[in-house]
Amino acid sequence: MLSQSQFVSLNRINSLPLSSSISVRKIFSDSLDFPHLGINSFPRIKLSSPKMSLNCVVSNEAEIDDLGVEDSELDEFAAVANKLADAAGDVIRKYFRKSFDILDKEDLSPVTIADQLAEESMVKIIQENFPSHAIYGEERGWRCKEETADYVWVLDPIDGTKSFITGKPVFGTLIALLYKGKPILGIIDQPVLRERWTGLSGRRTTLNGQEISTRSCSSLSKAYLYTTSPHLFEGDAEIAFARVRSKVKVPLYGCDCYAYALLASGFVDLVIESGLKPYDFLSLVPVIEGAGGTITDWTGQQFNWKASAGSPATSFNVVAAGDKQVHQQALDALQWQ
Amino acid sequence: MLSQSQFVSLNRINSLPLSSSISVRKIFSDSLDFPHLGINSFPRIKLSSPKMSLNCVVSNEAEIDDLGVEDSELDEFAAVANKLADAAGDVIRKYFRKSFDILDKEDLSPVTIADQLAEESMVKIIQENFPSHAIYGEERGWRCKEETADYVWVLDPIDGTKSFITGKPVFGTLIALLYKGKPILGIIDQPVLRERWTGLSGRRTTLNGQEISTRSCSSLSKAYLYTTSPHLFEGDAEIAFARVRSKVKVPLYGCDCYAYALLASGFVDLVIESGLKPYDFLSLVPVIEGAGGTITDWTGQQFNWKASAGSPATSFNVVAAGDKQVHQQALDALQWQ
Repeated sequence: MLSQSQFVSLNRINSLPLSSSISVRKIFSDSLDFPHLGINSFPRIKLSSPKMSLNCVVSNEAEIDDLGVEDSELDEFAAVANKLADAAGDVIRKYFRKSFDILDKEDLSPVTIADQLAEESMVKIIQENFPSHAIYGEERGWRCKEETADYVWVLDPIDGTKSFITGKPVFGTLIALLYKGKPILGIIDQPVLRERWTGLSGRRTTLNGQEISTRSCSSLSKAYLYTTSPHLFEGDAEIAFARVRSKVKVPLYGCDCYAYALLASGFVDLVIESGLKPYDFLSLVPVIEGAGGTITDWTGQQFNWKASAGSPATSFNVVAAGDKQVHQQALDALQWQ
Repeated sequence: MLSQSQFVSLNRINSLPLSSSISVRKIFSDSLDFPHLGINSFPRIKLSSPKMSLNCVVSNEAEIDDLGVEDSELDEFAAVANKLADAAGDVIRKYFRKSFDILDKEDLSPVTIADQLAEESMVKIIQENFPSHAIYGEERGWRCKEETADYVWVLDPIDGTKSFITGKPVFGTLIALLYKGKPILGIIDQPVLRERWTGLSGRRTTLNGQEISTRSCSSLSKAYLYTTSPHLFEGDAEIAFARVRSKVKVPLYGCDCYAYALLASGFVDLVIESGLKPYDFLSLVPVIEGAGGTITDWTGQQFNWKASAGSPATSFNVVAAGDKQVHQQALDALQWQ
């Protein structure tokens, strides 16, 4: 064993706020094993997430009532959202690590038959269940009978297509439901590992039906940071990111949307990205806020994107943190105007 | 669906050499699903890898006989190596996504109780089965009654400790057996996903018992490249890496040893890293060569590291490719002296 003198410092991770400690330790008291995870251990999907406990302060508390969405409606949306993720997952698993064509879009990002079929499978279910809802999908944009709608499903069938193409199982299916422009439901689904993070306004986020929580982190210097690639930052954004990166404990790469899921679960402290499209981040909002975390743009503002027939897929800079202190320190370092 | 006019170019991946096409397509004809993978579908572990077919040219062909290691001995080593990976996996799964201390070593790299216990579990099995063999482990260095030994087990219990710490399942246990300085056995084991790549001199590499192969790639401009982090390159190495990175189709990050495993399986074309220790790359050699790939230092030379009681853990620059053409083009771009 290493002697004490060989250690420079000692860190205890997973120092959770007291209010969440019991439920999270219970979640993880059994050995986590993916083959069992998908088959035996956690309940596969629950039709509604448990209401948050009185000790847990969640940043989206009470908003769902203010919006005028009934609990029963939210349960119904959650049930259908799970069907969307199931359907997309069935498609994606068929193509993962198979031979298929990779097509380069006009912006040179890759797309595959799996992206296209997964999106179509979700669109079909939405149209069957909620014909008046609008859909904004990465592959085909806006679909609705009207120019605008109160409810908009925003879909990214495979976030992290390059990971998918190279056989690395950290990509995800992203599903968001907006009500009057606000994300009230978000799913991050990893269909190969069979992990599903579900965030619903006013409720605690769950991973495969079990409540989860972000972790405390008092300082950037202790933070584990993820971003997908250093090449996603350009110009001033690259300089701003470098200011944060130089202050964190460990900068890590290559995790796509899975990094935000790990943050919601309390294993990562900070995720910072640039150039994300609405279908890349809207689903993350309920997931992270429902786990006690914070996600905003680089000026600290909530995201403001109006989905409609004419909406361009604007790019956003995103900063997500498990702890408000780290979130603020990241904003201070980014110095973004 | 996207119209033809929206596509800039069309690429077909997984264009495999004819000799390997049948066996690889058969491997992947069933839906790949990790929960099933670990439990039902592929044979979990075979005590020896199948001999290579006459159509498959593997770069380590016939070397095992030249070295004077019998087939039956190699089978015995493989059987024990599997036990090592099983034992390390049992430890690692207990700690994955659990609360534990992270200790910073003198070089500021993190180590955990899982690293330490996993290494000890493997050492114990080696000492029981092969008391005359030497061991060189990442955590505790050289262990042997003598100053040198013909057989040396080189172990990295968790390659990608930062991925492990942050709950991202792409780290791996690396096990190599050297005979007179040459790696004759290599294992890359991902214990959470239950995937095990096994390379044995003179034999085709297997993934969970099934033969695999790297894929063809005629040009750097078509290559998918992985490296763990942009921060692993310093000075001239950073400049050299940038020369290659600017030429590939897609540079990707954050995959640890798993990237080499994906390369051996034919999903990735090129992996380039700097500052790897012997316990990080020796196990990769039989895995990649046995799948038809090439792995050398940046000057194109085979690795030369003498394991002994006094051996420092020298750093090496590594380039691995599935196709010899891409390997050569990478060397040409690196221009490393």
